[in-house]
Amino acid sequence: MNNWLIEQLLRLNMSEALVKPEGFTREGYTDEETAAIAAFKAIAEELGLAVSEDAAGNVLARWEVDGGLTAAVATGSHLDTVPNGGAFDGAAGVICSLGAVKLLKEADYSPQRPIEVICFRSEESSRFGVSTLGSKAMSGLLDPAIGSLEDQNGITIEEAVKRQGYSWQDMVASKRRKEELKCFVELHIEQGLHIVQHHKNYGVVKAVACPIRLAVTITGKAGHTGTTPMDRRQDALVAAAPLISFVRETALQLNAAYDTALVATVSTLTAAPNSMNVIPQSVTAGIDIRSVDDDLKKKMADAIRNECKRIEEIFGVAIAIDVLVNNPSIALDEEMAQSLADAGNHEAYLPHRMDSGAGHDVMNMAQAWPSGLIFIPCKDGLSHHPDEYATPDDLKMGVELLARFLVEATQDGREG
Amino acid sequence: MNNWLIEQLLRLNMSEALVKPEGFTREGYTDEETAAIAAFKAIAEELGLAVSEDAAGNVLARWEVDGGLTAAVATGSHLDTVPNGGAFDGAAGVICSLGAVKLLKEADYSPQRPIEVICFRSEESSRFGVSTLGSKAMSGLLDPAIGSLEDQNGITIEEAVKRQGYSWQDMVASKRRKEELKCFVELHIEQGLHIVQHHKNYGVVKAVACPIRLAVTITGKAGHTGTTPMDRRQDALVAAAPLISFVRETALQLNAAYDTALVATVSTLTAAPNSMNVIPQSVTAGIDIRSVDDDLKKKMADAIRNECKRIEEIFGVAIAIDVLVNNPSIALDEEMAQSLADAGNHEAYLPHRMDSGAGHDVMNMAQAWPSGLIFIPCKDGLSHHPDEYATPDDLKMGVELLARFLVEATQDGREG
Repeated sequence: MNNWLIEQLLRLNMSEALVKPEGFTREGYTDEETAAIAAFKAIAEELGLAVSEDAAGNVLARWEVDGGLTAAVATGSHLDTVPNGGAFDGAAGVICSLGAVKLLKEADYSPQRPIEVICFRSEESSRFGVSTLGSKAMSGLLDPAIGSLEDQNGITIEEAVKRQGYSWQDMVASKRRKEELKCFVELHIEQGLHIVQHHKNYGVVKAVACPIRLAVTITGKAGHTGTTPMDRRQDALVAAAPLISFVRETALQLNAAYDTALVATVSTLTAAPNSMNVIPQSVTAGIDIRSVDDDLKKKMADAIRNECKRIEEIFGVAIAIDVLVNNPSIALDEEMAQSLADAGNHEAYLPHRMDSGAGHDVMNMAQAWPSGLIFIPCKDGLSHHPDEYATPDDLKMGVELLARFLVEATQDGREG
Repeated sequence: MNNWLIEQLLRLNMSEALVKPEGFTREGYTDEETAAIAAFKAIAEELGLAVSEDAAGNVLARWEVDGGLTAAVATGSHLDTVPNGGAFDGAAGVICSLGAVKLLKEADYSPQRPIEVICFRSEESSRFGVSTLGSKAMSGLLDPAIGSLEDQNGITIEEAVKRQGYSWQDMVASKRRKEELKCFVELHIEQGLHIVQHHKNYGVVKAVACPIRLAVTITGKAGHTGTTPMDRRQDALVAAAPLISFVRETALQLNAAYDTALVATVSTLTAAPNSMNVIPQSVTAGIDIRSVDDDLKKKMADAIRNECKRIEEIFGVAIAIDVLVNNPSIALDEEMAQSLADAGNHEAYLPHRMDSGAGHDVMNMAQAWPSGLIFIPCKDGLSHHPDEYATPDDLKMGVELLARFLVEATQDGREG
């Protein structure tokens, strides 16, 4: 199994190595993502699965069952990456799902209901500032208004979707019927170090921390850097500096004061005109705030608002704050979490019950179907980085856990 | 004269208004700059001047003299702008130079040596991080190595020059012979408020403050914004924030401690990967330091180096500092400055002796020929900004001052 997993992971990543200095750049609704999905379809067909696409370009690879129950048990993840990301974020879940099917087929297992491996489109928010487009479409959570959001090259989501052969209108209307699925489970790399630090083998997630995301635009005044005296400036970048420090320091303080973790990051910053001899006229900073405690997220966002008022007064700039995202955190299905923890017992793998600081496709699926999420460890907790890595043994563990869960979920007597 | 000046200034700016919300974007060695230069050639020919180009694309518009002295008296400026700049930075000097020729022709003046109006290429540093390419070429100061510097779209100087029909190799070798010019005078908008604050009409510049420019690259570690705990980060943007504040605060302190002014600006900042869910991996900040006191510039640069060492230790990042530019400040010709101050007396305009915080083409010309620089006021001291403005009366004053100087300089008995 290990060799097969690595070989197929290389195929999905269209690469001869799983760790490369420049990492992998395969953003949502690009030709690169589409090429990786073509590899997924080929592997699924080699396993005898029936491949189809929905209106969002999500791929459904199905193990059909004659005359059994009709609601499928689904598992899967995504194949897009952030720019210069790693080979495992998303792809690990996709390949372990296919690996579980392979394991069950080789064991001549006969499911009583269909098993479906889903490859979601455009999970990362790096391109358009909005995440999980494919699973939002499938779950009926897609806001039609976001079609006009642009990437850094001015290409809208609607246009990007179209260029890959899909229609935004069809995608918005493509919510899947509830009765088609019984439940959904996603496997993902942890992107952190909690599993290892707790001396466990894998993670079973209780809740997913969804972000508050702010775009803070500071407007000062341009001027010549050589002729504008220091005490007559309204420099937007000078005004942005204390905000960056404030976000970090306030997050550290909240972590010291509360039991539940919170992270807050000024992750993007664009200065205009960004010209060597012009005082910065305006700065837009993107701030990402996460915690499974929604009140704590709000505390952080409120503190940022107050700090912006202080900065406006001190530096003579104007600050506008746009809320890009404000999603409540998502609790996952308790019963499924128990099944996923039990699956480890069969294989002597120790589960660690934990929360997820990152969003995943499962957070959308959970709003329509009972859903679960398991994590496998990744090296140094690194993710969204070229050095992102998970061992073949941990991938194999993921295959075994998913296979065990699929057996449990396709043998039960539940209606569907 | 006022109507003619405004009409021609509109032609040079290819616009129906001299102040527009978006300003003017006409960067060096672009089609936009070339189009403005075509307008310059047309106006020069209408005035009966003989138009030619050198290997850098600088345009020489000459009032030739039969049988007189051969070394020309030159005047001029540039037509490129920063992105979203104004209609006067550069163009004011170009149109006043042509206006002076028009005034003298209409007065049937007969110069004893040629008068030359020069339109320099690519004065602003906004595109390639290096300023005054055209006047550097003419003065023999062009470093061949900078041909490989790129703009934000990855286009090198060499390629940009080629696209406008010139050869980088020819341009590097195009130093003008010393005997071709007797002297050079530039007129420019002040880009500050010293003239008005001293209740004078125009500025006569003693020295030009040339910048030290640093590119500070901070390298931290990327990671997922949702899963990397606050106390385990090496966030390059968090490390950049105190540096931005430090540059401003140290410049303010140096101004309080010394008589000579210094300005220092973090004018550009680029964060990578600049993605909403990735901790900033690296930040490059461009710092522009100016003063006519070279020791003071060095003090500032040294303080920045020390602060970077402190930041490396506190935030666990690595910082590399590249010196992009380190040019000593340029003293202008004392005798010419006296002539330019005397020119005001003839017209009852009061000169203010001052230094220039900004670099200009004249700083290169001064290294090969006796050179002078005069400033006319601009509204609110604003420049590199869409609201940049100079009044028609101040432009007319500039024409009269240049015309007076040209008469003085083309009547003298100096050899050449």
